[in-house]
Amino acid sequence: MAVTVAIDAMGGDHGPAVTVPAAVAILDEIPDLALILVGQRDKLAAALAKQNSQEHDRLRIQHAAETVAMDELPAQALRNKKDSSMRVAINLVKQGAANACVSAGNTGALMATARFVLKTLPGVDRPAIVTAWPTLNGHVHILDLGANVDCSSELLQQFGVMGSVLVSAIHQKPEPRVGLLNIGVEDIKGNTTIKRAAELLRATNINYCGYVEGNEIFADTVDVVVCDGFVGNVALKTMEGVAQMIKHNMKMEFERNPFTRLAALVALPVMNAFRRRIDARRYNGASLIGLAGTVIKSHGGADVLAFQYAIREAVTEVEQKVPLRIEREVATLLAEHTS
Amino acid sequence: MAVTVAIDAMGGDHGPAVTVPAAVAILDEIPDLALILVGQRDKLAAALAKQNSQEHDRLRIQHAAETVAMDELPAQALRNKKDSSMRVAINLVKQGAANACVSAGNTGALMATARFVLKTLPGVDRPAIVTAWPTLNGHVHILDLGANVDCSSELLQQFGVMGSVLVSAIHQKPEPRVGLLNIGVEDIKGNTTIKRAAELLRATNINYCGYVEGNEIFADTVDVVVCDGFVGNVALKTMEGVAQMIKHNMKMEFERNPFTRLAALVALPVMNAFRRRIDARRYNGASLIGLAGTVIKSHGGADVLAFQYAIREAVTEVEQKVPLRIEREVATLLAEHTS
Repeated sequence: MAVTVAIDAMGGDHGPAVTVPAAVAILDEIPDLALILVGQRDKLAAALAKQNSQEHDRLRIQHAAETVAMDELPAQALRNKKDSSMRVAINLVKQGAANACVSAGNTGALMATARFVLKTLPGVDRPAIVTAWPTLNGHVHILDLGANVDCSSELLQQFGVMGSVLVSAIHQKPEPRVGLLNIGVEDIKGNTTIKRAAELLRATNINYCGYVEGNEIFADTVDVVVCDGFVGNVALKTMEGVAQMIKHNMKMEFERNPFTRLAALVALPVMNAFRRRIDARRYNGASLIGLAGTVIKSHGGADVLAFQYAIREAVTEVEQKVPLRIEREVATLLAEHTS
Repeated sequence: MAVTVAIDAMGGDHGPAVTVPAAVAILDEIPDLALILVGQRDKLAAALAKQNSQEHDRLRIQHAAETVAMDELPAQALRNKKDSSMRVAINLVKQGAANACVSAGNTGALMATARFVLKTLPGVDRPAIVTAWPTLNGHVHILDLGANVDCSSELLQQFGVMGSVLVSAIHQKPEPRVGLLNIGVEDIKGNTTIKRAAELLRATNINYCGYVEGNEIFADTVDVVVCDGFVGNVALKTMEGVAQMIKHNMKMEFERNPFTRLAALVALPVMNAFRRRIDARRYNGASLIGLAGTVIKSHGGADVLAFQYAIREAVTEVEQKVPLRIEREVATLLAEHTS
């Protein structure tokens, strides 16, 4: 199936310096993929030339004069930046000229614009942000990661259903195990929102497995972890912070004296293999899920390799018809509620 | 200053097998410390004999017939286990026979019993659980870690004040930097409870530094991180889970083939130094803060070394008169509010 992805080529900390080389590289890899680079035509043409490339059938430039700043307020970006690379890329999805959009830009602006332009799927109250994290022996998907600070039990139920659909679609797992993040596995713990969400999740036909605690996120006991956006965002950033600290401390220990520097040399190939294993770049590309269209958020600081993973995520979700599957699953849920 | 600590010697996953050797070891280290081992006299005497020790002036046994199970409901433990090692240890603090209590038992039961017996300090609405975590170059204190699932802005303000007092008292830092955990550093992010808590914290005379995100917990930008117990507990367990995963994955890489096993041998001293640096056992001992008395919660799975750290924490808090300092600081806060 031929897929066309619109790239917000100006977004992210590095803009075209990352998005354009990533686009050129991934086109070599996926033969039936077409990309539309959205942004300032002269800058994008120059970035292409730097890669010894230019516009062709599968790689077109769509001019957009403005850019959304990384610290711009979402509402302001939505109101004032109607010709931004981000907005035009999302418009292309709405118009059917592209099947998906990938942006490394301002998360709040991307979510606000995508919601405004594409709308949520019927029956979905609010979209969520979801991404895969490395675990002991695989990976886990967590949602929401920050789009929804306060979540009702009903919203958490929808997150569970959407997460389940996403994982079954992109990983061909027929019945992903879904857990609800709580501070204890006993039924008595947690607040009333969580307890009610557990009841609602139990009433769906997804494979709901009960409560999980923070440490179980990495233990491969579930495939999907449901939580509100505040908690999910704190967990995500705590994970990043711990990994950073461990990396830094290990580096310090290896640089302590000539002997440890020698040890570092010997251990280097092993450490590199380990680093590849939990390389955050391989997990780049969060889905804005629940929208009538596929929108992928790349990390703002993504490099060329990481941005390719985000594009790859977009392609997979389009091929697997994730929005359509979510729409069907949510319709089933609503039919059960009203029956 | 002579300090007496009551030990819930039956608590934790290992009971007297850990608490008794830890007690014997730490008495050698701190000359003016006295300990009361609370629990079943025959079992404790036997555990002491195993250490070639027995009751003496600074190490007494206080019999208590019952024990609280690790999975017992807090309310049931409080109602039915009036002669438990946990309850009797806390009673000793109330009666003035001990200055502090240390338990590796059921957290919920410990909090419920301590609140019931000791009461909260005047002006403190609810006690919190707080502990130190390793950071890039030192450590940070986080509260609450799970005692309070839903927190009002006023409660978060009290956590900030109590955390500030604790850190200034035990680490002789005159003005600890206090941050409020949020999902973005911009003022616009977070929910109304968080925003109002920020205002309230700004109105205190502690050194409030604004919002911090999950990754900043480990970055030494603040000394105290304030959050509700749900978020704090998730962050704590996420941290444990990530550290566990990294350890496991690194081990796997080092065991892959003969070359990597050789590399492991060379790297071993460095890895051990690194492990010591972020050794969770050195951070064992969470404070139940805001009570009219000092109560320290050890990790349930603590070993002998870790349990000693928990006892040490109790001694320091007693020596530094942490409850009295909190009472004064909260009184100042209340005086300002009503003036």
